[in-house]
Amino acid sequence: MDTKGKVIKCKAAIAWEAGKPLCIEEVEVAPPKAHEVRVKIIAASVCHSDTYGINPALKEAHLPVIIGHECAGIVESVGPGVTNFKPGDKVIPLYLPRCRKCKFCQSPLTNFCTKFSELKTPITEQELMDDKTSRFTCKGKSIYHFLGVSAFSQYTVIKDINLVKIDDDANLQRVFLIGCGFSTGYGAAINDSKVTPGSTCAVFGLGAVGLSAIIGCKTAGASRIIAIDINSDKFAKAKALGATDCLNPKELNKPVQDVIVEMTNGGVDFAIDCAGGSEVMKATVECTTVGWGSCTFAGAGLTDKGLTISPVELIIGRTLRGSSLGGWNVDTISKLVSDYKKGKFDLDALVTHTLPLEKINEALDLLKQGKSIRTLLTY
Amino acid sequence: MDTKGKVIKCKAAIAWEAGKPLCIEEVEVAPPKAHEVRVKIIAASVCHSDTYGINPALKEAHLPVIIGHECAGIVESVGPGVTNFKPGDKVIPLYLPRCRKCKFCQSPLTNFCTKFSELKTPITEQELMDDKTSRFTCKGKSIYHFLGVSAFSQYTVIKDINLVKIDDDANLQRVFLIGCGFSTGYGAAINDSKVTPGSTCAVFGLGAVGLSAIIGCKTAGASRIIAIDINSDKFAKAKALGATDCLNPKELNKPVQDVIVEMTNGGVDFAIDCAGGSEVMKATVECTTVGWGSCTFAGAGLTDKGLTISPVELIIGRTLRGSSLGGWNVDTISKLVSDYKKGKFDLDALVTHTLPLEKINEALDLLKQGKSIRTLLTY
Repeated sequence: MDTKGKVIKCKAAIAWEAGKPLCIEEVEVAPPKAHEVRVKIIAASVCHSDTYGINPALKEAHLPVIIGHECAGIVESVGPGVTNFKPGDKVIPLYLPRCRKCKFCQSPLTNFCTKFSELKTPITEQELMDDKTSRFTCKGKSIYHFLGVSAFSQYTVIKDINLVKIDDDANLQRVFLIGCGFSTGYGAAINDSKVTPGSTCAVFGLGAVGLSAIIGCKTAGASRIIAIDINSDKFAKAKALGATDCLNPKELNKPVQDVIVEMTNGGVDFAIDCAGGSEVMKATVECTTVGWGSCTFAGAGLTDKGLTISPVELIIGRTLRGSSLGGWNVDTISKLVSDYKKGKFDLDALVTHTLPLEKINEALDLLKQGKSIRTLLTY
Repeated sequence: MDTKGKVIKCKAAIAWEAGKPLCIEEVEVAPPKAHEVRVKIIAASVCHSDTYGINPALKEAHLPVIIGHECAGIVESVGPGVTNFKPGDKVIPLYLPRCRKCKFCQSPLTNFCTKFSELKTPITEQELMDDKTSRFTCKGKSIYHFLGVSAFSQYTVIKDINLVKIDDDANLQRVFLIGCGFSTGYGAAINDSKVTPGSTCAVFGLGAVGLSAIIGCKTAGASRIIAIDINSDKFAKAKALGATDCLNPKELNKPVQDVIVEMTNGGVDFAIDCAGGSEVMKATVECTTVGWGSCTFAGAGLTDKGLTISPVELIIGRTLRGSSLGGWNVDTISKLVSDYKKGKFDLDALVTHTLPLEKINEALDLLKQGKSIRTLLTY
């Protein structure tokens, strides 16, 4: 059946209210307009940022909404003006757009685009298409998009500047992870921290981002990788992926940063925060060495008070930076799909569960309870 | 008269009590011991860090003390084991030692040495020589050294690892500035910030360090240099040295960072804090652009609460780093003496007053009141 130009009726998980379970509903997905692409989602997962979008604490949240942003799929149809994609193309959507025209897109120094950098609260914007309307309707109501992606629908509509074409033989059941979690952690280590061979590293938070940062540190040739989490159940996997030491701050009788400084005779060369929160940010800074301690922040808590830092903590030689999507953009990230195909890194370890989209609330619970790394949602 | 191996009696400015004027006294300066050098000071100046050393708020301060650390002089005699210096050599002392053996000295990533990085409160340490005694005595009392230098004495004793040999024809009445203020600001721009041609810069604080940062930004080819100070009297000099715009936060009706963001259509590429304090640190971060905003902190207030920063302020692409002595060390800083001789930059503008050592309290007052940039002290 040719669906091009027609409204598609399909299943989607709708968040009608903040803090409530998602509801599986039939939604109507309008055809793509100019520079938009309609994508059939094949694989996706839940990331912590999705839960922010429906957190009652986030006043700016737009509801009802279809959340989800870490996914992969196949182009169903394209709107006018779309030249880089055709029906049947395998694609990964990114929450970071790339207009290729602005000063940011034209600089090698950033993966930001003016269309993203001007957003006031990125987690709740890209909630409508450029014509300020949604492509989703359910029970007669317009439903908001989320982070420009809205993965938790069998079909979604995405701007062409948020979309990455990938190889036809890519395994979507794994490379969907490149849409966010894997790339964020791996890139925080190799692109943003620029971890060096023989160096010592500390990675805080052992979810998908943190474990991917460990993969990145190991790929970069780090000689020692200290993995930190308050859930010791994560340690076996961290070690399997390259961690040389694991620390649970709850099981230590002094601050974890002090233990790391002792273990490394002065602090690590590189620390990567994949957890977020004031305490972890502080530990990330303080566990690094005088002289060249590199601190990269890839995690952001929703209600985070942030880090308080004295000038002396910087003047002794530390550098602090943030990391967003691991420094990758729409044009560079497809390299990761090729690298995965070449066996440069493993994504299997990050997929701990598989559930159909209908059981998305179960997937959300597994994540919140720290029982899953990523649950592969099938459509 | 050969003074080698003998105690030298000379004039020095002694701080007997915190918060009180310095007293010009006759001191006895013992001969240098192993790996020490006795130096006749020819030119020096007062830097804000000197005032910290005698500030009643600094509980760790050692008194009585001879402060002063920005200076230049001539070697009078050397102790056993000193191979790099001989009597008659022109030298600049640095508060940053360089043992050339530790992991820091062997890395190009830092100008720190283990002998400095292990200090708990650098501003009050290096207060004695390696044998835990002082070389200064006054009225029968042992007088502490300061920052390993103690410039405000006609003769001082310095460890050879804190000393830089410079060209015989160097003009000590100017290159003493390379011992701290000039190098700190200039290096913060060119070594630590790595200011790029055509970039936009903001420099906070227009003392010797800030003005030198402006010289550095201009040398690096910045196209726009915004100079910020709460004392508008500093603006003429800032403009003469390369500032394109000057802002006084007290004369603005909104935060200075907001004004800078508007002036630059999104924020500067590089911001350098040469003032210190929580408010300036915050402005330094917030005046930089999304994507690649570079924030370098070269100033440290004594009783500073520091900076509170949210992860989002970093994740949008900013980098924060500290800068100490502009990244120069004992081995690299002599390049600045050569560059000065070649006319690559001007130091005259930084010397606004000249006074004999006896009038050091006047020099301190001129600095505190913001009336001087640097007062050249003559001996």
